[in-house]
Amino acid sequence: MRPLTIIPVHGVPEVRPDDALAPLLADAAAAQDTPLLDGDCLVVTQKIVSKAEGRLVELDPDDIAARHRLVESESVRIVRRRGDLVISETKHGFICANAGIDLSNVARGQAALLPDDPDRSARRIRDGIAGKAGIDVGVIVSDTFGRTWRRGVTDVAIGSAGLVPVLDLRGTTDSYGRELQVTEVAVVDELAAAADLVMGKATGIPVAVIRGADEAWFGWGGVVADVVRHPTEDLFR
Amino acid sequence: MRPLTIIPVHGVPEVRPDDALAPLLADAAAAQDTPLLDGDCLVVTQKIVSKAEGRLVELDPDDIAARHRLVESESVRIVRRRGDLVISETKHGFICANAGIDLSNVARGQAALLPDDPDRSARRIRDGIAGKAGIDVGVIVSDTFGRTWRRGVTDVAIGSAGLVPVLDLRGTTDSYGRELQVTEVAVVDELAAAADLVMGKATGIPVAVIRGADEAWFGWGGVVADVVRHPTEDLFR
Repeated sequence: MRPLTIIPVHGVPEVRPDDALAPLLADAAAAQDTPLLDGDCLVVTQKIVSKAEGRLVELDPDDIAARHRLVESESVRIVRRRGDLVISETKHGFICANAGIDLSNVARGQAALLPDDPDRSARRIRDGIAGKAGIDVGVIVSDTFGRTWRRGVTDVAIGSAGLVPVLDLRGTTDSYGRELQVTEVAVVDELAAAADLVMGKATGIPVAVIRGADEAWFGWGGVVADVVRHPTEDLFR
Repeated sequence: MRPLTIIPVHGVPEVRPDDALAPLLADAAAAQDTPLLDGDCLVVTQKIVSKAEGRLVELDPDDIAARHRLVESESVRIVRRRGDLVISETKHGFICANAGIDLSNVARGQAALLPDDPDRSARRIRDGIAGKAGIDVGVIVSDTFGRTWRRGVTDVAIGSAGLVPVLDLRGTTDSYGRELQVTEVAVVDELAAAADLVMGKATGIPVAVIRGADEAWFGWGGVVADVVRHPTEDLFR
């Protein structure tokens, strides 16, 4: 294994509906002297993807009832409720707080919804960068989720392109030559978490480049198909 | 924010009970020309901590009943069971598969149990490095956990020292000047996930150095006190 570098991309301009993200992100990376390279992973926060895709709705932040209606309309199932907190399942199958609806880093009076199809969003960015610069990168769309039994949030992948979301190590042996017990590593989630370390919630840096990625991480698949746990495997419905 | 570098530490020798980890890890880092620096974070896998602390027991891997007895003796509560899989709560409060007992990267016929007090384990390593070299580092003891609704495992922190496990951003504003909604970031878990990217389950690299850490991540606290969700907040008991 070799070192991995996580590079925050500064200077990304305010994103508006119908902006093409690929040139915007590639230009911002180039402008800070870290032009994208083949084999980079680009982690892009959901917020700017939702903005570019026009997934913004009007919402009075003080109107709790309107907020709850919006969460319900973006959910296929309410999993738990306590006070103001709603844990629900989105149409993508993500189980998260408030159906992923977010009021931070958007204008007052607006709320950002999750992208319709975050894997497709990631593919578009990847294809756009390949088309513009002929550069082959992996792309992750990341969002911030809570965890069942651990305090604090971490970033996870809600979409990916050009990457193997869950690395299958079946048949691999450990340093003692024995078959590994733990065989499926959610690489895209570890990459999203790593990227969040240089983005910060307050600074609003929406993109990070991960350089030095392992070849084994590149391939095909999507977060919705490969990471979302199938209901039949779910022990906590 | 500035770039973060995740450096795998190669050449750590096989760890035996009563080995002092601090000099062993500092020497391995120095031997590969990345001597530890003030402000580094050191992420150490649970496996070598358990070995150094003698938390190994005899276990015939084919004796399923013995395995289940061991999982139960290391658990305070069984949360879910399905087939061979047991999700239980450990005495530390971690909810994970098989009480964190692991048969990979240990000799055949042995099983590694979680450290008795992984925050103390992290403190010992931190203090050892401060004592040996006068270097002030943050230390995380990491382990590999599954997630309730997502396939694949990721590494999380089970112990830490010299770090703020959950960064409290209350009162911080976003790029629009509005107070952040998401205010508690589990930095130690994001650091553990980032480190796993350069360690690999198969290669058996037990340590990574994270260089370029944000000053705000350094401070006091422990994973058991600060990250483990209190039962009264737990919606999924």
